[in-house]
Amino acid sequence: MPVNERIVVDTFLRMLDLGGTFVFAIGGGAVGVKHRLDLFGVLVLSFVAANFGGITRDVLIGAVPPAAIRDWRYIAISVLAGVLTFYWYPATRRQHTPLVVLDAIGLSLFSVAGTQKALAYHLGPIAAPILGMLTGIGGGLVRDVLVSDVPNVFRAEIYAVAALSGALVVVLGDILHLPSNPMALAGALVCFGFRMFSIRRGWHLPVAPPPEGPEA
Amino acid sequence: MPVNERIVVDTFLRMLDLGGTFVFAIGGGAVGVKHRLDLFGVLVLSFVAANFGGITRDVLIGAVPPAAIRDWRYIAISVLAGVLTFYWYPATRRQHTPLVVLDAIGLSLFSVAGTQKALAYHLGPIAAPILGMLTGIGGGLVRDVLVSDVPNVFRAEIYAVAALSGALVVVLGDILHLPSNPMALAGALVCFGFRMFSIRRGWHLPVAPPPEGPEA
Amino acid sequence: MPVNERIVVDTFLRMLDLGGTFVFAIGGGAVGVKHRLDLFGVLVLSFVAANFGGITRDVLIGAVPPAAIRDWRYIAISVLAGVLTFYWYPATRRQHTPLVVLDAIGLSLFSVAGTQKALAYHLGPIAAPILGMLTGIGGGLVRDVLVSDVPNVFRAEIYAVAALSGALVVVLGDILHLPSNPMALAGALVCFGFRMFSIRRGWHLPVAPPPEGPEA
Repeated sequence: MPVNERIVVDTFLRMLDLGGTFVFAIGGGAVGVKHRLDLFGVLVLSFVAANFGGITRDVLIGAVPPAAIRDWRYIAISVLAGVLTFYWYPATRRQHTPLVVLDAIGLSLFSVAGTQKALAYHLGPIAAPILGMLTGIGGGLVRDVLVSDVPNVFRAEIYAVAALSGALVVVLGDILHLPSNPMALAGALVCFGFRMFSIRRGWHLPVAPPPEGPEA
Repeated sequence: MPVNERIVVDTFLRMLDLGGTFVFAIGGGAVGVKHRLDLFGVLVLSFVAANFGGITRDVLIGAVPPAAIRDWRYIAISVLAGVLTFYWYPATRRQHTPLVVLDAIGLSLFSVAGTQKALAYHLGPIAAPILGMLTGIGGGLVRDVLVSDVPNVFRAEIYAVAALSGALVVVLGDILHLPSNPMALAGALVCFGFRMFSIRRGWHLPVAPPPEGPEA
Repeated sequence: MPVNERIVVDTFLRMLDLGGTFVFAIGGGAVGVKHRLDLFGVLVLSFVAANFGGITRDVLIGAVPPAAIRDWRYIAISVLAGVLTFYWYPATRRQHTPLVVLDAIGLSLFSVAGTQKALAYHLGPIAAPILGMLTGIGGGLVRDVLVSDVPNVFRAEIYAVAALSGALVVVLGDILHLPSNPMALAGALVCFGFRMFSIRRGWHLPVAPPPEGPEA
């Protein structure tokens, strides 16, 4: 890939990443406010929800220090979103829908950006989408563990599967040598559409049947 | 060590690792089914229980991307075991014994394989068995945290100590320059025997005495 | 910096780190005893509380294997503190004050040492204090997650903010090219003083107001 195109891809990837950071940080801060944490706790949940997935991905592919630590913009955006949420969230908490939409946007951007970064670090077509999905769901998972909830992603409807579907679009584009920015957009749209459509239709994954007879 | 022997050791180590992955993934999936998670949640618990210990070890010794991410067989085996558990576990959940035996096998294989890998990365005779033990107990520990339980390993009878005993056999063999495959087998047998024997005898570690007087 | 001074700095940094390890390990062991864990569980909580923050910092800056794994003294000190706590803590548990003071000492030493190490690995003036703070608060945070508590640091008074204040003193000294050992001492004193003073005065961070009207 020529240098110019490489820079465009990197800029685009960074923009997806920073956008996802902002919307996930708002969601993380909102969980902190709901649990009546103090201002610092809310900021930590904002940062964790927005950056833990990406940090884990970067550690696993050997890209240390992770972008979320090295690049001050991730920290600044997370803190900004956390402060905004801390002061504004209580007045708006009955508006559940925007949070769900923001979260679906974050999931789409992160899954796609995470997959692209894993491919750039030479991970294969099975590992890359898993790392992309991890980028998308990791932050929310640890956010829930920190406030002692069973992670929402384990009970959610179509969530991780939507992230995986977007990641697979990116990998497919990579295998077929299609241009990466349009495929990233397509992957994000597939993830977002799948997630929102499944919410509207009430789709969910199968749950194991209850045990037969008394428990062991 | 000649190249041929090196390859034999690596193949043997990989087989131990993949075997441990399968049995731990079944145990992780079973915990997910018990907590009524959906199919994805069960697969995640399978993967985490089977691979988190090894991933942590690999990150700590600098072997990134970790084998469990880079090598598709770990992912495939974990997913296969998770799907099997999801569909078959409820019918068989009253059979507690097989799970305990499978878990002891996984613990033995992982502790030994983890110690060998740490030694191969030039960790010393104190750090290597700790990393081996961590490989053995790490997955189950995070599995329990994810479903908001206090990790079972903290309350279990002789569990981490059994892992440590197997790891020490491997380190001892390394110090004495004994052939590594037989010592790995010996270590796994020591760990497995110690674990099963302690269950049969009801052995457990000391617990701190209850506090004197009312709590502070 | 001349080689001799470099060695003095390293020795000083290592001493801060080992001192912080001991006091945090006691605090971690005490939490294990309170939750009636067995001896191994108490030792794990000692080790985690004392070393998880530093291990995370080392993984994030690419210093693997982390010092806490590679250097047997961290392990030995953690185990020693854990055993002491296991056998002596119950008799002394009504003495709450010493634990709080020890914890403030550990927080001060770790925040300062963590910031220095991050600077030595060329992290910038925003990332370095965050890694210093993480070194200080990370162990206690995971300690609480392991026993299924909401981490204390989220509800604590001035805790992470005190760690951050000490870290900022170190960064400021680095920017102004002031000698590093005296600035490390100053940073530790600022953190310790801020923490203890805020406890005495009952200071705390703002908490989000309760929601208006019924919950969504």
